[in-house]
Amino acid sequence: MTQNRQVLLASRPQGAVSEQNFRIVDVPLRAPADGEVLVRNEWLSLDPYMRGRMSDAKSYVPPAKLDEPMTGQTVGEVVESRDARFKPGDKVLTSLGWQSQGVARADDLVTIDARRAPASYYLGILGMPGITAWFGLNEIGQPKAGETVLVSAASGAVGSIVGQLAKQLGCRAVGIAGGKAKCDYVVSEFGFDACVDHRGGNLHSDLRAACPDGVDVDFENVGGAVLDTALSVMNRHSRVVICGLIAEYNATEPYGYKRMRSVLVNRIRMQGMIVFDWQDRYGEAVARARHVEYFTSLTPRATPFDTPNILPS
Amino acid sequence: MTQNRQVLLASRPQGAVSEQNFRIVDVPLRAPADGEVLVRNEWLSLDPYMRGRMSDAKSYVPPAKLDEPMTGQTVGEVVESRDARFKPGDKVLTSLGWQSQGVARADDLVTIDARRAPASYYLGILGMPGITAWFGLNEIGQPKAGETVLVSAASGAVGSIVGQLAKQLGCRAVGIAGGKAKCDYVVSEFGFDACVDHRGGNLHSDLRAACPDGVDVDFENVGGAVLDTALSVMNRHSRVVICGLIAEYNATEPYGYKRMRSVLVNRIRMQGMIVFDWQDRYGEAVARARHVEYFTSLTPRATPFDTPNILPS
Repeated sequence: MTQNRQVLLASRPQGAVSEQNFRIVDVPLRAPADGEVLVRNEWLSLDPYMRGRMSDAKSYVPPAKLDEPMTGQTVGEVVESRDARFKPGDKVLTSLGWQSQGVARADDLVTIDARRAPASYYLGILGMPGITAWFGLNEIGQPKAGETVLVSAASGAVGSIVGQLAKQLGCRAVGIAGGKAKCDYVVSEFGFDACVDHRGGNLHSDLRAACPDGVDVDFENVGGAVLDTALSVMNRHSRVVICGLIAEYNATEPYGYKRMRSVLVNRIRMQGMIVFDWQDRYGEAVARARHVEYFTSLTPRATPFDTPNILPS
Repeated sequence: MTQNRQVLLASRPQGAVSEQNFRIVDVPLRAPADGEVLVRNEWLSLDPYMRGRMSDAKSYVPPAKLDEPMTGQTVGEVVESRDARFKPGDKVLTSLGWQSQGVARADDLVTIDARRAPASYYLGILGMPGITAWFGLNEIGQPKAGETVLVSAASGAVGSIVGQLAKQLGCRAVGIAGGKAKCDYVVSEFGFDACVDHRGGNLHSDLRAACPDGVDVDFENVGGAVLDTALSVMNRHSRVVICGLIAEYNATEPYGYKRMRSVLVNRIRMQGMIVFDWQDRYGEAVARARHVEYFTSLTPRATPFDTPNILPS
């Protein structure tokens, strides 16, 4: 019997996540039954939504279970298959979570084409983050050429794609990121017109300077003071895509947003999104992402599973 | 020369409005010139937006000017006309503001038909509040039959109409108002299914009880804790119409909204509105309101101009 290394969710974090919330175990791995496939994970995507799954607060899906491998999408290789659709050597997208191998139901696997793009891209621009960026920007943000699109967490898996899509549409793309190194990266690697450091201490005036015509679309991944400040530079009839609120995820008290009046006065449309809502249209985004893939060289956002420390430092 | 009584904005209120912010003066009234009309005001509408105009904070229109009659829509009768479109005795809708008479440009007047409905209705259901309710509910709220529509300030000029329109559309209409008398009135006069007293001390649980299937549309006129609590009972893919935030208008510090996460998790669409945005479509709302007018007996919301104390107590 094969041994399998798993990272279990041992306890639900209060505030910031720590290694103490996890436990690494080596357990025997059972053989696949009919309709099942044994997959060896090669790539694991670490995504902001995971912080929500670690909590048992009511959300759009049930929380991750204690003493089970932490939730996550992976890309891996089929080792053994008891389903006609898969054979050893196939690359697949899985929901096996934080473990080095796993037995999955064949119905839950998606075949990927690792010749078309590096396998890890199916966890990034060709996967959930890319699809999130595509639908959030186009369906909710609805930017028009010449408008200014502001993107928080601009160096992240979703934000980096939103900015590039905005540039393709003829918009001014302005990022927000934490620290000079990330901001430089956002401009030089992803081609944003500007990027503002939210740790710089002058977010409002820096945003004003970077967005001389105001902001027409805010693609919000961060929330908290970043969103509240963005609301002070939004134009009339602008749109706010609430894709993520990571500034709140570790907080034990919710942030108090003080600029609701801007929503009224400027007739802002603010809308929450979860990528699942477009599940039956994922193909549209992936087809389109093919173009983005050649548009820029993207740094893979996925973390190799065998990195010694896979937990946030 | 005729004498004219005016209520001037004497100072900009900090916090609650008081009589000290106004000054009553009697001034001579000049005769109309070519293209102008002298109107004697009969009805003045006191509306929540006026609090915004008293402030010089940036908003969607310039503030009311100090030492001039306070801004407001009136219905009055033409006394003397130097324009072919108006003759003495005509009833007109004006923007003359808080004064007993005034000289208006004929271009700024709208003729009303006081035989069709009482003149004051053109400041209520057939005027700006009715048009606000119509477009806000239909264009942003987009309620479907069987859904629950929550309306704050439900006894107010806008809210009372929103609830009636919602009932016509086959929705459950639930109001929020301050005090038992107003709540009873909302149910008995305007036909809401229920009304919750926001002063009752149990807003969240009272809303849960009044909205057993959650809330699909929140037509928000109040803001502050009322809106923040409403966000805790909103359904997935629900809509929040930000029509007014009167709880904030007198506040010297903005309210801190703590439920942005509900916008994300429930994919709520929240949108600010100002009735001006549909200016070229007002006719649609007024045509439709004719029906509402017979649907229920409405208490006129306008205040006769000669009420001894026209200032909020």
